[in-house]
Amino acid sequence: MTSKKINLNEKYSKFSKHWSPRIIAEMNDYQFKLAKIKGEFVWHDHKHTDETFIVIEGEMILKFRDDEVKLSKGEMYVVPKGVEHKPCATKECKILVVEPRGVINTGEAGGDLTIHEDQWV
Amino acid sequence: MTSKKINLNEKYSKFSKHWSPRIIAEMNDYQFKLAKIKGEFVWHDHKHTDETFIVIEGEMILKFRDDEVKLSKGEMYVVPKGVEHKPCATKECKILVVEPRGVINTGEAGGDLTIHEDQWV
Repeated sequence: MTSKKINLNEKYSKFSKHWSPRIIAEMNDYQFKLAKIKGEFVWHDHKHTDETFIVIEGEMILKFRDDEVKLSKGEMYVVPKGVEHKPCATKECKILVVEPRGVINTGEAGGDLTIHEDQWV
Repeated sequence: MTSKKINLNEKYSKFSKHWSPRIIAEMNDYQFKLAKIKGEFVWHDHKHTDETFIVIEGEMILKFRDDEVKLSKGEMYVVPKGVEHKPCATKECKILVVEPRGVINTGEAGGDLTIHEDQWV
């Protein structure tokens, strides 16, 4: 056994930067990432994979080109692959993201918010 | 867009049977399943996949042959593939399980608690 239990709040206490997801666990070739978000992210999609958002604390808006969805604590959403989306949050929101290893947070959109290397916490 | 937001508590309100996981979402070939657990499950492992447990409400014990881990609300654990485990809960505990589509809940152990068909909620 190489795993340990993971306490989400303890992990959240170890970083404060917004839009900077931190990996907390891997399951096969998938990763669980915590993020604190506030403000507006960039429009992007992921051509080859779905992406799961779970709200742990607070509220976020997932904007789509033709719609938007408000997600509160205890709610989740699976963004299908290839669907453009823009995560937003008026106040700081804590989320858990589940997606395959190697997914770039901004898809192919690039920009200052792009994270190039895995960051564990 | 074919997805909808998923409210975990609303989904939990729709079933009461223990050890009877209900699928709430799929991400690629992975599934998110809610379960209410109470008592002792069977010893089993999953030969070909890791399995993720996230505690949404209450407390559970993950027993291993050489150890055990208590998980409370807001804690998660990834059981590595091939590792025998036995989920237990003294009082009812609500969990979110993430694993590939097609995983049998009892592994190869069989028995009355085995779920043979996908059950969505």
